[in-house]
Formats: sequence, structure tokens, C-alpha cells
Amino acid sequence: MVSTPQAQGKGDCQPAKPVIRLWFKCENLQRIGAFKARGAFHAIERLKQDPSFTERGGMEKGVVGFSAGNHAQALALAAKENGIPAYIVMPDMTRPNKIAATKGYGANVIVCPRFERETTAAKIVAEKGARLVPPFNHPDVILGQATAGLELQEQADNLDTIIAPCSGGGLLAGTALSCEGTSIRVFGAEPEFEGADDCRRGFLTGERVTSVNTNTIADGLIGVVSELPWSVIYERKLVDGMFAVSEEQILEATRLILERLKMVVEPAAAVTLAVTLYNEEFRQMVEKEAGEKGWDLGLILSGGNVSAEGLAKLFG
Amino acid sequence: MVSTPQAQGKGDCQPAKPVIRLWFKCENLQRIGAFKARGAFHAIERLKQDPSFTERGGMEKGVVGFSAGNHAQALALAAKENGIPAYIVMPDMTRPNKIAATKGYGANVIVCPRFERETTAAKIVAEKGARLVPPFNHPDVILGQATAGLELQEQADNLDTIIAPCSGGGLLAGTALSCEGTSIRVFGAEPEFEGADDCRRGFLTGERVTSVNTNTIADGLIGVVSELPWSVIYERKLVDGMFAVSEEQILEATRLILERLKMVVEPAAAVTLAVTLYNEEFRQMVEKEAGEKGWDLGLILSGGNVSAEGLAKLFG
Repeated sequence: MVSTPQAQGKGDCQPAKPVIRLWFKCENLQRIGAFKARGAFHAIERLKQDPSFTERGGMEKGVVGFSAGNHAQALALAAKENGIPAYIVMPDMTRPNKIAATKGYGANVIVCPRFERETTAAKIVAEKGARLVPPFNHPDVILGQATAGLELQEQADNLDTIIAPCSGGGLLAGTALSCEGTSIRVFGAEPEFEGADDCRRGFLTGERVTSVNTNTIADGLIGVVSELPWSVIYERKLVDGMFAVSEEQILEATRLILERLKMVVEPAAAVTLAVTLYNEEFRQMVEKEAGEKGWDLGLILSGGNVSAEGLAKLFG
Repeated sequence: MVSTPQAQGKGDCQPAKPVIRLWFKCENLQRIGAFKARGAFHAIERLKQDPSFTERGGMEKGVVGFSAGNHAQALALAAKENGIPAYIVMPDMTRPNKIAATKGYGANVIVCPRFERETTAAKIVAEKGARLVPPFNHPDVILGQATAGLELQEQADNLDTIIAPCSGGGLLAGTALSCEGTSIRVFGAEPEFEGADDCRRGFLTGERVTSVNTNTIADGLIGVVSELPWSVIYERKLVDGMFAVSEEQILEATRLILERLKMVVEPAAAVTLAVTLYNEEFRQMVEKEAGEKGWDLGLILSGGNVSAEGLAKLFG
């Protein structure tokens, strides 16, 4: 697909007309409907190889996670398939269908007030002797997410660039690590609404932003990038740049993916395409650097966990 | 996927609990977003091999189609890729985006009153010397659609059964022909709303129903089965039976495909899954005939041409 020049130029500039060939990594088709399965399965696989876990009865004591969304289901499934008990702490604003889905994978679900997730999880760790598997701030989780980037490189020959969305930063950091030592450049994508572009703003100041309160439609991306991903993304300079897009651009990209690719994605997944089609700064860069030859650009469609009613709300 | 027993039993019967393994043929991912590309490309390929077409300047005079939907785009695309002019007659209730898409494939679009499609097309045939490629009532179109069934048989080993939706009957007749001489049984699926189950009713009386006026949400299935498909489906007995489903069942099946398969399909495509999950008569039959071993059941998801707003209307 060659992108169409629908982006608006800023000021007097002509809109860029970069040549781009798109490759989509459809993590909406992943188990539990999002890339999060990768991190959870990998983290548990590593625990099973860790004597400090297994020799202290870890397989019986289980694992603990906190999440309002995809990590909850991912960890519940990974634990179930490995015969390990799972305790999932979910904030009280979690949608009932997500709680039901997590219970459906056999997990013990503990509902708590929104800002007590981590303390509640810590309490269960202490009480049950279970091991915490955090949603992004852990090397094994990040390396699990990295397998999406590795697979994409195998499936699409000669990629020049990959764009991944950034929330807690696990997927973006993993993608960056999967490209380390290759010629593939990695960029991150975020919504700009109400400061949701915390990682991009961190790039500008050199300081990680530690809190954000946004109601972006890309509700999978409301988190701030956490320490370990930040160290990979920014401090080790494995990500070349961050780009942000508006709510309208995210909605339009979501529509294109639904109508043209026939893929159900959550808006968070569409930020990568929105940057590609509508972020003029990104497009000017590609036009300048790639020239007529263009770029083979991989986009990670991070997940597809949106209900039919959720889609109706977006486009009604 | 083993189907869950959500169907309601009739009368005193217990709802059946058949064992079914589902295989989906995703024609929503086909070019132009629906199986119709198969029939159009095959019909044009055959024209190119037909001296009565080529020797009379057919490649310059072109082809004519009439359609409010997917056949229009399919024929326009197939003609364009073969360098043949296309004249597409579209009724005046056709959605503007479908007219735009058909023009986008380089076709000449002629808009006419709803019930003058065939006469308008006949006029163009006479005036331009172009050849009519009907949407379903033609052997080359039916044999083109049959390739969906052939591919499904290659992709899914050991199928017991295939269900295809039925409107004009091209896809169902083609599917049946693709299974002729194998042990695979073929069934058809229709909406029951306002008599849209014309083919099923024809099976009951032995007479093809020749007109229907329905506003089913499965708007791809408002047509009646035409002569040639009927001869394959009913007279040659290549289809074992027809099953119909309610609007609510179609909507619920559409939701499942969106939310679980992450596939955008139009409601017409979901009638096959709706029969599988909710038609008690079908389910009793499978339970009785397949027993504990169950059936490997192929479902043809016929297309995915629904807009984001169209989805919003369904689920808002």
C-alpha cells in the first residue's frame, strides 16, 4: 500500500509525499487478542526455569498481576496453561466483561480501588508467597514482547523501519531490542490528547514523565512509560524518535484498518498507521531520507480488544 | 472452536449439544472485500478465451454488469486488470461510497431506477456491443465462486460439511459444485426476516420463489435465488438442505466474529455461523449424525464490506 497524502502541511510547506510500503503485524489475532500474551508466556516460562521460584513451591503458590486490561487476561491464560494459580488485581473501574474474561481463564480476581493496584498486589505476594509478574516493567516481559518484532522481521523481508505504540513501554522497548544490531530503525507512536504523549515529551526534556491523566480514545495507551522500558527506549537510544497524533487522526486510521484491512483493532493499535498517514513531521522525514526508493515500514497492530458496542461508540 | 449450546430448544426438547470444529474461509479478506471477485475474474478469463468475444472486438467493446454492491466492484476491478472497458449499471438507491468505489476502479457507472437495472443493462449491451456478465445467473460466474469451496477443501483437511450463505445463489451453487463427487455435504444459510429465506421456502414447496421484499440486516442476502443456481442447488440436489436464522441471531453471530475472530464481516457473512450456533434444527441434525466424533464444518464468510458507520448502526 502506498500511503495517500492526506496529511495537512504545517504553515507554508507542501505536504510530504513519502513512498511507503506497509507491513502489518496483526497482534489483534494473537491469543487473548493482543501482544500481551507474549510477555506473560515468556515471563512464566522463565519462572519455570528459575530454581528460586520452583524450589520454593512457586508452581503451587502461583503468580500475581495487576491490570485493567490485556495483561490480566494474558497472565491468567499463561498461568492456566502452565498449571500455576494466578491472582489478578483489577481496579474497580475495570469493565465487567474484562473481569469475566479473566475469571474465565481460571484466575482469582481481586477488585480494588483504582490507585491501590500495586499495594494490593504486594499484599497478595506477601500473603500467598506468589510471584509478581508486572505488566511491562520487567526484563522477561519486555523480552517476551520483543518476539513480535522478531517475527515481523522474519515475515517481512528488508524492513527499513518499525513503528510500535507506546504506553507502559514494554512493546516499544521489546521491539527496539529485537532490532538492535540490525539496520532497522524503530519509532514510537502515541496519542497527543491531554498529554498522553508522555514518552515523546520525555524525549524533548530528557526526563521521563511520571504521570498522565488522559481520556484518549486510544484507551490502551493511557499509561506512562515505566523505568526499565524508558532505559531501553531513551537512555540506550534504541528508539530513534517519538511521534504523536490527534484523536481525529487515530479515529480515521482505525476506520481505514476496519474498512480496508477488515481487521478489528482497538484505537491504540491504529496510532502507528495514524503517524504514518497523518503526522507531517514523520512524513517529511521519510520523504527526505527514503527518497523515491521509499521505505518498507512495519507497523505493529498491538491488539483488537474492543467490543461491538465500543466500535459503535467510536463511529456512531 | 467447539460451539457452545446457546441455542434455545423448541418445545420440550433439550437443546442439542453437537460437537463441531469450525473452519472459516475468510472471503472478507478477498480483493474488493468479498467472494464476488472470484466470479468476475473467472468470467472475464473465459471471455478472453472465447473467439465470439475477442474476434468481434470484445476487448475494446467491454463488459456490462448490474449490481448495487460487490459484483459491481468485482467486475470493475476484473475488467480494469484485463484492460477491458466496464459499464456498471447501479440502482439509484446504491450508497454513494459504493458508486465512488466502482468508479475508482475505472468503470463507467450508469445510475438507473431500482427496477430498471436489467433493461438498462440490455440497452447498453445493444448500444455498445459489450458483453453482459450477470452477478450470479451464469455458469462462468458460478464456477468462479466455486474456487472458494475448492480452496477451503485444500486448506482444511477432512471437512465433513460446508455452509455457504444464499442470495442469488452463485456462491452456494459454486460451493456445491466444488464438493460434487466428494463426501462433503453442503448446506445453505439465509435470514428468515420478511421472507428472505426464499431458497429454503423453495425447498419446502419444490418451486423456486421468484420475488422477495425484505429489509433484513443481512443486506447482502436480499436477492432471490436465480434459475441456474437453483438448478444446481435444488434440482440436481447438490445442496442437502437450507436453514434460516433470525435477525437477533445474525447480529449475535456478527458480534462474535468481530469480537473473537477480530474479523470485520458484513451481517450476510455471519448467517453461516448463526445457523451453526443457534439453529436448533441444524444442531439436532449434527448431534444425531456426527455423534461424539463431531463434524469439521467449513463456513464461508462471504464478505466484509460494511462501513464503520454501518457497524455503529448495528451495535449502537
